[in-house]
Amino acid sequence: MIRALLTSIALFCIPMLLSANDGYKLWLQYYPIENPQAWQENVLKQVSIDGNNETITIIKNELEVASQGFFSTKPLFVKENPSLLIALREQLPSSLSQSASKDLGTEGYHIYSKNGQTVITANSKFGLLYGTFRLLQEIQKQEIISETGIVEIPKVKHRVLNHWDNLNRTVERGYSGFSIWNWHRLPRHIDQQYLDYARANASLGINGTSVTNVNANALVLTPYYLEKVQALADAFRPYGIKLYITARFSSPMEIGGLETADPLNKEVQDWWKDKTKEIYEYIPDFGGFLVKADSEGQPGPHNYGRTQAEGANMLADAVKPFGGIVMWRAFVYSEKTPDDRHKQAYNEFVPLDGKFRDNVIVQVKNGAIDFQPREPFHPLFGAMPKTPLMMEFQITQEYLGHDTHLAFLAPMYEEVLKQDTYINGKGSEVAKVIDGSLHDYSFTGMAGVANIGTDRNWTGHHFHQANWYAYGKLAWNPWGNSGEIAEDWIKLTFTNQKEFVDPIKKMMLNSHEMVVNYMTPLGIHHIMARSHHYGPGPWVTGGERSDWTSTYYHNASESGMGFDRTQTGSNALEQYSTQLQEEWGDLNSIPNKYLLWFHHLPWDYQMNSGNILWDEIAFHYQKGVNEARENVKIWKDLQKHVDRFRFEHVLSFLEIQAEEAEWWRDAVLLYFGQYSGLPLPEGVEAPKHDLEYYMNIEHKFVPGI
Amino acid sequence: MIRALLTSIALFCIPMLLSANDGYKLWLQYYPIENPQAWQENVLKQVSIDGNNETITIIKNELEVASQGFFSTKPLFVKENPSLLIALREQLPSSLSQSASKDLGTEGYHIYSKNGQTVITANSKFGLLYGTFRLLQEIQKQEIISETGIVEIPKVKHRVLNHWDNLNRTVERGYSGFSIWNWHRLPRHIDQQYLDYARANASLGINGTSVTNVNANALVLTPYYLEKVQALADAFRPYGIKLYITARFSSPMEIGGLETADPLNKEVQDWWKDKTKEIYEYIPDFGGFLVKADSEGQPGPHNYGRTQAEGANMLADAVKPFGGIVMWRAFVYSEKTPDDRHKQAYNEFVPLDGKFRDNVIVQVKNGAIDFQPREPFHPLFGAMPKTPLMMEFQITQEYLGHDTHLAFLAPMYEEVLKQDTYINGKGSEVAKVIDGSLHDYSFTGMAGVANIGTDRNWTGHHFHQANWYAYGKLAWNPWGNSGEIAEDWIKLTFTNQKEFVDPIKKMMLNSHEMVVNYMTPLGIHHIMARSHHYGPGPWVTGGERSDWTSTYYHNASESGMGFDRTQTGSNALEQYSTQLQEEWGDLNSIPNKYLLWFHHLPWDYQMNSGNILWDEIAFHYQKGVNEARENVKIWKDLQKHVDRFRFEHVLSFLEIQAEEAEWWRDAVLLYFGQYSGLPLPEGVEAPKHDLEYYMNIEHKFVPGI
Repeated sequence: MIRALLTSIALFCIPMLLSANDGYKLWLQYYPIENPQAWQENVLKQVSIDGNNETITIIKNELEVASQGFFSTKPLFVKENPSLLIALREQLPSSLSQSASKDLGTEGYHIYSKNGQTVITANSKFGLLYGTFRLLQEIQKQEIISETGIVEIPKVKHRVLNHWDNLNRTVERGYSGFSIWNWHRLPRHIDQQYLDYARANASLGINGTSVTNVNANALVLTPYYLEKVQALADAFRPYGIKLYITARFSSPMEIGGLETADPLNKEVQDWWKDKTKEIYEYIPDFGGFLVKADSEGQPGPHNYGRTQAEGANMLADAVKPFGGIVMWRAFVYSEKTPDDRHKQAYNEFVPLDGKFRDNVIVQVKNGAIDFQPREPFHPLFGAMPKTPLMMEFQITQEYLGHDTHLAFLAPMYEEVLKQDTYINGKGSEVAKVIDGSLHDYSFTGMAGVANIGTDRNWTGHHFHQANWYAYGKLAWNPWGNSGEIAEDWIKLTFTNQKEFVDPIKKMMLNSHEMVVNYMTPLGIHHIMARSHHYGPGPWVTGGERSDWTSTYYHNASESGMGFDRTQTGSNALEQYSTQLQEEWGDLNSIPNKYLLWFHHLPWDYQMNSGNILWDEIAFHYQKGVNEARENVKIWKDLQKHVDRFRFEHVLSFLEIQAEEAEWWRDAVLLYFGQYSGLPLPEGVEAPKHDLEYYMNIEHKFVPGI
Repeated sequence: MIRALLTSIALFCIPMLLSANDGYKLWLQYYPIENPQAWQENVLKQVSIDGNNETITIIKNELEVASQGFFSTKPLFVKENPSLLIALREQLPSSLSQSASKDLGTEGYHIYSKNGQTVITANSKFGLLYGTFRLLQEIQKQEIISETGIVEIPKVKHRVLNHWDNLNRTVERGYSGFSIWNWHRLPRHIDQQYLDYARANASLGINGTSVTNVNANALVLTPYYLEKVQALADAFRPYGIKLYITARFSSPMEIGGLETADPLNKEVQDWWKDKTKEIYEYIPDFGGFLVKADSEGQPGPHNYGRTQAEGANMLADAVKPFGGIVMWRAFVYSEKTPDDRHKQAYNEFVPLDGKFRDNVIVQVKNGAIDFQPREPFHPLFGAMPKTPLMMEFQITQEYLGHDTHLAFLAPMYEEVLKQDTYINGKGSEVAKVIDGSLHDYSFTGMAGVANIGTDRNWTGHHFHQANWYAYGKLAWNPWGNSGEIAEDWIKLTFTNQKEFVDPIKKMMLNSHEMVVNYMTPLGIHHIMARSHHYGPGPWVTGGERSDWTSTYYHNASESGMGFDRTQTGSNALEQYSTQLQEEWGDLNSIPNKYLLWFHHLPWDYQMNSGNILWDEIAFHYQKGVNEARENVKIWKDLQKHVDRFRFEHVLSFLEIQAEEAEWWRDAVLLYFGQYSGLPLPEGVEAPKHDLEYYMNIEHKFVPGI
């Protein structure tokens, strides 16, 4: 199956310029602007900015780098008559102030034109930094700043990246090399990449990062590592980024010498209080703890018969005096619980609503299973009115084909965020839980599991940079639009040329659905290969725990397939609002995309399309393959718009994706075909090999585990 | 001990240009030449080169990249009246040919001026490629090509890099990140870095590479991996680089289903023959096998009571029909052998002289122990007149401070190569074994254990690029001069400015001796920390095997220290020529640098310097510390000559080195001081902590193991 695509190798054998674009600059390319409008050339000529701190220096430097890139000139920093004035609102002369700037909060900014000058104002230096990045993006996109201008205030308070990076620099579910954190050289060597990382995040408004795996190692809490963590926090601080640490629940035993980690034990509580105090001595603005407990082998309060709230509150009490928070993950499930895994987090957490300290936020994955190509939103959203909930999206593509599969994830994020929960009636979208407006939380957050590694372009696939970017944009504004995000990213990363932007935007916006088509259409889920989740594995069954198998989820037999989560089955559906129970419980109204998520159906079930289920499944797989092949053509046609390095790199990955889409289609249809006993419908290509062939494919050393 | 050097962190918090130099371009910077001489500008203007193959395309591209960098112009490729003619000797018009080109062999080249034209000629496309790189280096250095010109013919046939890279991308003894070979993406994605790697090697004349660890995994011989290896071989081929594979001796059992790997077993022999045939189907010009056997847990012929020759010959017979070779490592020793580890390889191999097939070359480390900061040359050199021996140098700094310690290794390599073995009388230098002239070998080779990883600058420390470079230059010509190599590298990598070149050259040339001073002066050896070898560990004793401890090597007690390898001790000395036995056996004539390697001496032993041994040891450690500190100053003074990225990166590492030199001095002197019972002499700083403190330092997740 895994045969070399020799065409791509041949292309690569043409030697290339070392100075070509390796993608390291991300969406901050600052490429030359051809035929700039006068205002663009002028606005960066004379800049006034006051203040003497590292963030101001960063702003100045950014203006220099950008101006150099756009126009091959450097800005002059002046005191009088600037073309661009960057100033805190309190410093702004009244002749230049605007009433629209009055409610910017601590991180918002306002960019506008007045009296022939361009103004960036904010209430904090970080607001100015965000505004500066935004102005530069507008210039690159050749947009004009109007008199009304741009007012931007983040709708979410904690916008955090979660790195699942281990101390040995492997990255759990990481597909772009290894961890960029070189713990061995820290704290003494601060690599330039750490600053470039902080800069890239600041350009999106990301304001927090947790640098170690949620499957945590207690060592990170020892002085040996705290010194290193401190050095990172120091490097990130001028960019407005707070550092969080993943806390292993059993740390008091592992590094504290205690015999228990019971959260109600006084010694344990004191240990955490002392440890927290120690951390704040290293990092005075330490953000707080991120915790995965009682899940997939991680220790937690369950070990002592305590609740998740009791566990979280112990840590919350420790960080409270210092202004810290606890992000407590809701990803709690156990193979010992006989109930549908889908229902377990809800069952565990809903009874605890209102029992968490006010500096705890519960971090909930977008869906109830685990970052599937498509999942209905997690039923916890809307179900805990007295407990702040934050969204956890996975940016890295654990179940989405890993490094080589282009899947622009903004449409997936948007689908979840804009889904109506109907909890308080129509208009109770998930985004309103996240921005706090539905239940009047002032404490809000969003987490993204990072896709960043040592690859020269940070994210493996050049297009996966767009997922980091999109996550940042949606964390700032969960109501953001995927199309706009894609278009901006393309323009900032490649070119403004319409002949390139339009087809690539279309390709990106369709790419997630394409992956769903060739992997898990119509609500099928969790049929990836065991453990590493690379490639198809619908045959995965048996072993350590049933909720880690494919057969648990697809329930295929001669009678049909799908997971019955209605009343006749696990009734996970009852965890949603009555409106959704009705819509999704009824075969006439449930969207096709969730069909087999909630229903077990016979192979000859008649779809609205007129096809029977089996044929509909097969058509979706074929469609995904066709789309993946088409992307190769689209990309090749656009060669002249892209530098050679990035063109070849992306082409090679798109070719792999097209090949692997076939692998998915063939393996899955052969497997389910055993049960359906039906032939492939016309228009669906015959598999290249037999089922045994696909079942025997064994990949070695798959990255990310 | 490991305290943050806050000054360097503060410096780093100044944000920097993303477009700045990250070192990826190595010594192929092709930076602008200010005030070029007319010939320089002219020579690249009109180039004639014939032929239509990938190597010719690579040459053309190199000329373009260089010309763009030097002069911001592109060369014109012409048929008539070129300023630069690049042509095979057989294609050269007689008016332009020179008799000096007549013996260039298959890889040599001749560059010269004639009739106002510059000519590069060779007998092969690879000779032309090497010549092109050389011409471009001369231009960057602003050297003029004379009428006589430059005739270069490699003195060694197989110039090979050995990567100790595992299939999971960790690198044994690698300190610059992880393996650049992304096996998971191979064969379908050929990363640009693979081509840039091949190009960099070709620019030095390296013509072979073994991409996997000598502690080998048999999986690399399975079709799943052979496809991947093939893709690398295809990528390297146009650069004149052959691919070798490390063969695990027990592969017939592990992947072949046999019950033995006995080299005299017919089935085993046939398995290897079949496997080899299969490999050649993937890679028609496959170089052959590199084998570590019967050493440090690796399987080998000893498991079956067979000799190293019997093991090697079996593989040699398998590759012979295809023109392949076997590089069989002499690094064979066992803790079960009661004799001094120093003597074991000699004892094992000398009796086998003449018993190896003619396509076997025995690969011998430069010294008999293991890549110590300084070792006397390996006594095998000169001792096997009927068996070709190749040199194995370690480029990666396993025992030399790892990533952060600047140690330019050319002087160390040169010291070994120019050492006289006296085997055939005076003038029997080790280099004559390596270039084949001493024993009339036509089969010659040199291997370097690579220091390359995923770090953006390839080698971690920017200055460690110079070790890759120096290895390549000495593999081409073992008689090369460290000073010239350093000077060229500095000019190609940084600048031609004398104010920079002179002090940096001095710093580089002294750096290896500096490291010896603060780590293991006066013949002290193998006193690094256990297992990872990072930092001092003179107290390491006990455990799995005594020949992996420090006490085995230093033998410190109240009576003195040192390893008695004279007649009164292990008599390893008898493995050297009688001249060296006399010179090194006599305390009056042995150079100080080897003193404690061969002699056990009392602490108050009177040195030629007038100092007693203890004081002399202490002064060496202090000297090393002083030199490391001085390097920080030298570098800071040269800031204006270096771009900001590389300046800060190197500064940070030099500061770490100065700090760790103190760590070495304090830990080692405290430890030996227990036995000497003597105070530190005046001029040697008191340790900052007590011995217990240093003994309790425990580093976690040290890279490279």
